[in-house]
Amino acid sequence: MTNRPNSITLIPIAGIPEIGVGDDLVKIVSDAATAGGLTIENSDVLVFAQKIVSKSEGRIVDLNDVEPSNFARTLSTEVSKDPRLVEVILSETTKIIKMDQRKPEKGRLIVETRGGVISANAGVDASNVTGGDKVTLLPVDSDESARALARGFKERLGTEIAIIITDTVGRPWRDGLVDIAIGCAGIKALKDYRGEKDSKGFELNATVMAIADEIASAAGLLMEKADSVPVVIVRGYEFEKGGTGATELIRDPEEDLFR
Amino acid sequence: MTNRPNSITLIPIAGIPEIGVGDDLVKIVSDAATAGGLTIENSDVLVFAQKIVSKSEGRIVDLNDVEPSNFARTLSTEVSKDPRLVEVILSETTKIIKMDQRKPEKGRLIVETRGGVISANAGVDASNVTGGDKVTLLPVDSDESARALARGFKERLGTEIAIIITDTVGRPWRDGLVDIAIGCAGIKALKDYRGEKDSKGFELNATVMAIADEIASAAGLLMEKADSVPVVIVRGYEFEKGGTGATELIRDPEEDLFR
Repeated sequence: MTNRPNSITLIPIAGIPEIGVGDDLVKIVSDAATAGGLTIENSDVLVFAQKIVSKSEGRIVDLNDVEPSNFARTLSTEVSKDPRLVEVILSETTKIIKMDQRKPEKGRLIVETRGGVISANAGVDASNVTGGDKVTLLPVDSDESARALARGFKERLGTEIAIIITDTVGRPWRDGLVDIAIGCAGIKALKDYRGEKDSKGFELNATVMAIADEIASAAGLLMEKADSVPVVIVRGYEFEKGGTGATELIRDPEEDLFR
Repeated sequence: MTNRPNSITLIPIAGIPEIGVGDDLVKIVSDAATAGGLTIENSDVLVFAQKIVSKSEGRIVDLNDVEPSNFARTLSTEVSKDPRLVEVILSETTKIIKMDQRKPEKGRLIVETRGGVISANAGVDASNVTGGDKVTLLPVDSDESARALARGFKERLGTEIAIIITDTVGRPWRDGLVDIAIGCAGIKALKDYRGEKDSKGFELNATVMAIADEIASAAGLLMEKADSVPVVIVRGYEFEKGGTGATELIRDPEEDLFR
C-alpha cells in the first residue's frame, strides 16, 4: 500500500452569473464559491470551461459584422455552414486538417487553431451566447489566460491553485465529445512515469499520461451543457506543479501519424 | 440553480492482490473494499483497469509459445518489435489503421481490434505481467466482461452498480495517454443533450458527450501505473442506466474522417 492515492472530489461551483466582457472572473468565482459554502484551497485544481473565459476576454464576434471572403463563401457551400461563420473559423485557423464534404448537411471542418489544438470549427461556438448571431472564439492564449487566473486567485485569496481551461472536442474513431485541456497554469500537463517500477518491480513501459486532459474530462462530467456550472474544483489530486502549459499536450506534427 | 449537480467522489480501492487466471474479481474487490473501510453502494460506477480483468479471464500469452508468421516477421523489422509480439498483435487485429516505419526504433502499429477499439498494439501489453515474456490481451468482449461483473456484484452485495472497464490509449494530435472505456454495463456510454435548452433558453447545438470515456479518464487519475489501484469507485455522478455498452462509443467507419 505504499503510495496509495487519496480520494479525489469534483465539486461544482454553482451560481455563476452570465459573464460579460471585462468581468472579473476571479471575484465572480470566489463570490459564487463563498455563497455556496465552498472554499478554494491550496493545491486545488480549478477547472474553467473555455466559454466564460472567452466571454470575459471579449472573444465574441457578431456575425452581422463579418464580411465573408470568396474562399469562405465557397467553403461554406461545401460544408453547409453560414459563410460568415466559416470566415470567423478561418480567421482562427492555421491549417485545415480535414474537410468532410460528402454530406454537406453534416459538413465538418477540422482545423488546427492558432493555439495548436486541432478541433472542429476552431473552437468557434454559437451556443449559449446572448444574441442569436454572436459566436465565441477560444482565448487568444489559453495558457496565458490560465496563468492570469492563477495569479488573480493568489492575489485575492492567498491560495496557490492550479488552473485548467477546457474545451469540448470530438475525436477520431470515437463517438461523443470529451473535454480536454487547452490552457494550464501551476500544473504539469503531462505526467511521466518512465523509469518508475511497477508493483512487481518491473520497469514500466514508456508511459506518459495526459493528466490535464484527464482532469478536464473529470470536471466535464459536472459541466452540464446548460452551462450553469462552468467552474469545477478538483480537490485531492496530487499533481506536479510547474510545467509550461497545455501546449505540452500538442504533439509535434513530425511525430503525428494522423495529419 | 435548477439541476445543480452534486459533487462526485473518486475513491481508490487499494489492497487488491495480484490477479491470476480464474480469480473471482467480485469477491476480491468486495473484500478489498471492506478491508479498506469502504462500501460499494447502489448507483456507484465501479471502474476496472483492463489488465486485471484480462488476467482473471486468462487472456495471457507466453511469447515463448508463439511462432511468428512470415508477415509478422517482416512487419516486426519495420517497426522494430519482437516478431512474436507482432504475431500476437496481429491475432487481435481486424485492420491495420496506420504503421509508422520512419523510425523503426520508435515504430508504431495502430490497429483496429476485434472489439472495434483503435489503439496501438491492439491493447497487447507487456508491462506488469509476471514472467518477462508474458503479455496480456484485451478481454474477448469487454462489454460482456462488464455485464458479468455487474451481475456478480448484484448477486454478492445486492447492489445495482454500473461497471466500466478501461484501457490506456494514445490519441492523434495530442501527447500523453488517457484512459477510455472499452467495456460498460449499467450505464449509457453516451449522453445526448440534443433538444435540451441552455441556461439562456437557447436550444443547444448537437451535443452528445462520451460520458463513459470521461469517467474512465477521471478514474485514470487514481490508477497509478504501478497498478496498485486497478479499481476506482466513482460516487455521486448521476448517470442514465441502460445502454448497450462501450461499443456505442465506436464511430461508424463510414462517418469517420480519420480512417
